[in-house]
Amino acid sequence: MSPMIELREVGLRDGLQLVGRYPETAQKQRWLGAAHEAGVRHFEVGSYLPARTAPQFADIDALVATVGRLPGARCAVLALNDRGLQNAIAGDAHDIGMVISATEAHSQRNMRRSRDQAIELVVRAVALNRETGAGKRIVAGVAMAFGCSIAGQVAPAEVLRLAERLIEAGADAISIADTVGYAGPRQVHSLVTAIGRLAGGRPLGIHLHDTRGLGLANAAAAIEAGATLIDAATGGLGGCPFAPGASGNIVFEDLVFLCQTMGLATGIDIERLVAARALLAEAMPEEPMFGAIARTELPIGHHQM
Amino acid sequence: MSPMIELREVGLRDGLQLVGRYPETAQKQRWLGAAHEAGVRHFEVGSYLPARTAPQFADIDALVATVGRLPGARCAVLALNDRGLQNAIAGDAHDIGMVISATEAHSQRNMRRSRDQAIELVVRAVALNRETGAGKRIVAGVAMAFGCSIAGQVAPAEVLRLAERLIEAGADAISIADTVGYAGPRQVHSLVTAIGRLAGGRPLGIHLHDTRGLGLANAAAAIEAGATLIDAATGGLGGCPFAPGASGNIVFEDLVFLCQTMGLATGIDIERLVAARALLAEAMPEEPMFGAIARTELPIGHHQM
Repeated sequence: MSPMIELREVGLRDGLQLVGRYPETAQKQRWLGAAHEAGVRHFEVGSYLPARTAPQFADIDALVATVGRLPGARCAVLALNDRGLQNAIAGDAHDIGMVISATEAHSQRNMRRSRDQAIELVVRAVALNRETGAGKRIVAGVAMAFGCSIAGQVAPAEVLRLAERLIEAGADAISIADTVGYAGPRQVHSLVTAIGRLAGGRPLGIHLHDTRGLGLANAAAAIEAGATLIDAATGGLGGCPFAPGASGNIVFEDLVFLCQTMGLATGIDIERLVAARALLAEAMPEEPMFGAIARTELPIGHHQM
Repeated sequence: MSPMIELREVGLRDGLQLVGRYPETAQKQRWLGAAHEAGVRHFEVGSYLPARTAPQFADIDALVATVGRLPGARCAVLALNDRGLQNAIAGDAHDIGMVISATEAHSQRNMRRSRDQAIELVVRAVALNRETGAGKRIVAGVAMAFGCSIAGQVAPAEVLRLAERLIEAGADAISIADTVGYAGPRQVHSLVTAIGRLAGGRPLGIHLHDTRGLGLANAAAAIEAGATLIDAATGGLGGCPFAPGASGNIVFEDLVFLCQTMGLATGIDIERLVAARALLAEAMPEEPMFGAIARTELPIGHHQM
């Protein structure tokens, strides 16, 4: 993979947030191996949450270990509270993701804390990472950065103010999320560009949902604006059960094709990646799998890179 | 609709190229009325071909008349040979579309003529339009402009050379087509920009298929590069029967949403447009209908324009 762009597979984390039936650990591990063989080198494998409330993530440490054995692979986990942070720092993942919400309403209702409290957790993460010498990359994200399903429109200036506070808190990378698929490519280009000016060379991430069909247009805009850490999920996993047919995350396979048409090196073989879908489809037979490239073939003369 | 951008509904033409069962004339007319009520102002309604070989277009003159009665609506038809051209010139459509292929192989195999012969037809169209005082807009398109399912890769310089010949032939507008969904947004941006330099202020069209999921990303890139005449079909009609699940034309409803997020005035009410889908779905129950915005709701606070 080009050092310029990291395509991060978040299916085992964001793709499992809402599913009724999730894969067994061995099924997840087989799929991780197959995706790695296809060339994927970055996986977000879960969130450190109590097994009681989030049983789909109970095997997170086993998955971190699996990714650790895959040559050249990078592993990310999410930490949403102090307990999760301590587990993530003590564990073997390379990246720790942390999330604040762009709106106070969403922060209070969905995360049951204020945005200030969420930022304080990032401050503690940076301190703990330094004190323990854990050497993690702290990736701080702003959810609902392009609009909020509770509060509605979100001012870009507000997102920039929050991103600035995350940078001041010491985050190693900043990511913004179109959590509910509200964005269009001009908003994405504009906000990624503005955050890039603040970020002082830190990697810029983008997390997009394809709820309204603009996910790949937004990914292209984000890449043009300088985003280098792009999230996606195999088959667009993570669709909302309340909107049948609405895709969740942008489709990883289609994102790879997009990047290849843009001349960006991905190191990924799309045909092998598509073949690996079968392992997830088998493990989650009720989940719809989205994506275009999986249903057709690569263009004649297409150069995979 | 903004004078800057024309969103052209091509479902009744390109969307019916491959379907097994097509709507009755009255069903087409009801849908045209409903789409017009939602704000659509430009329709391509068919191709002048013998009813024997293309029965789905046998009612083309009735549809041209229907669009003619819709206030402010513009009607386009396709003419692929001299007979079709004469019918189109004699008829009441505002725009006559003509197509040449970017590759000699595709031109010979699919259109059974050389590219030179196709360009000569455009020359004759311009002459006939002038002689008869018909006042049509001749929209000349280059198919397979981003790659060809027979010849493979297509050099942009070759497309530019052909576009230049169409301009010399006197075409009033130039359109390029990603007929088989090979393009990515960087190629689209680059080629539309280059054709814009040749076109001397003529409207620039783009016709995109979503076969590999990049249709809306490509539409955004084309608009950023100066394309002003954008084709799409309700529900992404026009999928290929040989690639199940593969969408055809880009989805009109999603294109409208894209344009609205870009701050472009469309004059279209997405909710009414989505409601009109039901008329087509009812008329073609076997055809899959694609699209994201139809499966969810508009963002809270989204400003339709």
